[in-house]
Parts: sequence; C-alpha cells; structure tokens
Amino acid sequence: MRRKNLSGETCPIARTLDVIGDWWSLLIVRDALRGMSRFSEFQKSLGVSKNILTRRLRTLVEQGVLEQVPAADGSAYQDYRLTDKGRRLFYVLVALGQWGNENLERPAGQPRSRFVDREHLQPIQRLEVHAADGRLLKPGDTMLMRID
Amino acid sequence: MRRKNLSGETCPIARTLDVIGDWWSLLIVRDALRGMSRFSEFQKSLGVSKNILTRRLRTLVEQGVLEQVPAADGSAYQDYRLTDKGRRLFYVLVALGQWGNENLERPAGQPRSRFVDREHLQPIQRLEVHAADGRLLKPGDTMLMRID
Repeated sequence: MRRKNLSGETCPIARTLDVIGDWWSLLIVRDALRGMSRFSEFQKSLGVSKNILTRRLRTLVEQGVLEQVPAADGSAYQDYRLTDKGRRLFYVLVALGQWGNENLERPAGQPRSRFVDREHLQPIQRLEVHAADGRLLKPGDTMLMRID
Repeated sequence: MRRKNLSGETCPIARTLDVIGDWWSLLIVRDALRGMSRFSEFQKSLGVSKNILTRRLRTLVEQGVLEQVPAADGSAYQDYRLTDKGRRLFYVLVALGQWGNENLERPAGQPRSRFVDREHLQPIQRLEVHAADGRLLKPGDTMLMRID
C-alpha cells in the first residue's frame, strides 16, 4: 500500500492517521489498554510476524504513544507501557468498537466483546457528540472548520 | 504491508479495522461527510492515484459504507453517498480529530481544523465515556469483555 505522508496536513484526522492509522498500531494500543506489556504477549495476541511487530512498536515509541520501561519482574526484558498520550487513544478505540458492534455482522458462533466499566461490569453508554451549549449533535450537524 | 483478515475476530475493534482500517478509506468518509460525492472531488482532496481511489471506493460500496446514486446534476456520472452505516463513522472521525488536535504538534504556520456545530460554528465538546449509570469513565476504568 502506498502511503502519502500527511504529517504536514491541516486536518487533525489526517495527521492522526499518519501516526496511528495503521491497522496493527491500533490493535497494539488496544492490547496495551488491556494490560499487555511484553513483546511476546503482543505477538501471541496479534498473530503478527516479529518483524512487523518490532517496527510498529518502534514507531509507537518514537511517536510517544508507548514508552519502554524495565520489566516489572526485574528480568532483563523491556516492557512497553502506554504514555498518557497513548492512553488517550481510548476514545478512538471505543468509537471503533461501538461502530463494529452496531454495524457489522458478528461472525457466526462468536461471542461479543464490549467495553464495560470495571466497577459494575456493565456496558458503557454510546458515545455522543455535544455542542458547546450541550445540544446533542448528529453527523450532519457538524462541519470541519479551520479556526485560526 | 501484510494484512491478516480479521473479519472472523470477536473483537469489534479488529472487525471494524478490517472494514475501514485503511488510511484512505477513513479520509474518503471524512470528505463524504464534508459533502463531497464525486470521484474527481475525492481525488483532488486526497491526492491519491485513480487506481487506489477506485479500489477504496469499490470496497466502501461493497461494505455498505457508501452507495452509488445517479449524479444530482442529471449528468452521466455516479455520485458516492454515505449510507446510514457510513455516516455513523462520524464518531470515529471525531475521536481521531480530537486526539490529533490535543496530542500532535501542529505543522508550523498551518491553521487548525476542528469540528464545529453548523448552527453556531462553535467547537464541539470533547468526547466523554460514561458508564451505564452515568459516571464519567477514564481509560483505565473500562475493560473489553465478552458478554454473551
């Protein structure tokens, strides 16, 4: 796939996709939010080659989404941990997950995964978009505008 | 880039990325939400080859994200229009845009784009995640759980 570098773009969506708009990158962030921190854990979860995983992890560290820290168990391994910047991708993952659950067929015989709150294990509410004055907005009620 | 087909995955994030987790696809949806409908409009906006654009548009139509309709001006062209399913990707785009605006450096000298509501042209509120009982949740307060 050819990619055009969009880091010089005005649109924040395009710039975000330039940083994390890679299929594996978002799944790595998902797994990190689930508590994974080891190369081997990511590899097992994603079924991806060591090569690709190494490159994606390096990019995510360079972008400040993940950071490398000494392993919690004192071994010689390095753990990968989400930075605050990386943790804020949570909202992107929630939006992706809710869209998938509501708009895609579930594979036959497969259970359904949803975001739940840890305290009561109940599904979270659907994301809503609100205007500055609190009005609920639908997709057609907004536009992307250059503001300065 | 090697891609593994994840359509049989349980995780709704992975399944969504399998459908729209391509860099161009989300930018096409962004432009369609902005009101673009013509092949030539998308091509000009994205600076992408006809080949790639043709393939992405075809996939988005097959996935039911876009639909082809006779051109509004009565010409022989076909317009591409978002379906309801496609329009609901709005929340994904808002999440990507807000993350970019808050977490990435803005290219020097570039204006900033933000989602505003059409009525008052004011920036929309930040996305929030709420529990079923209304509590505001942070990234660490949730987990992905298989629920049936």
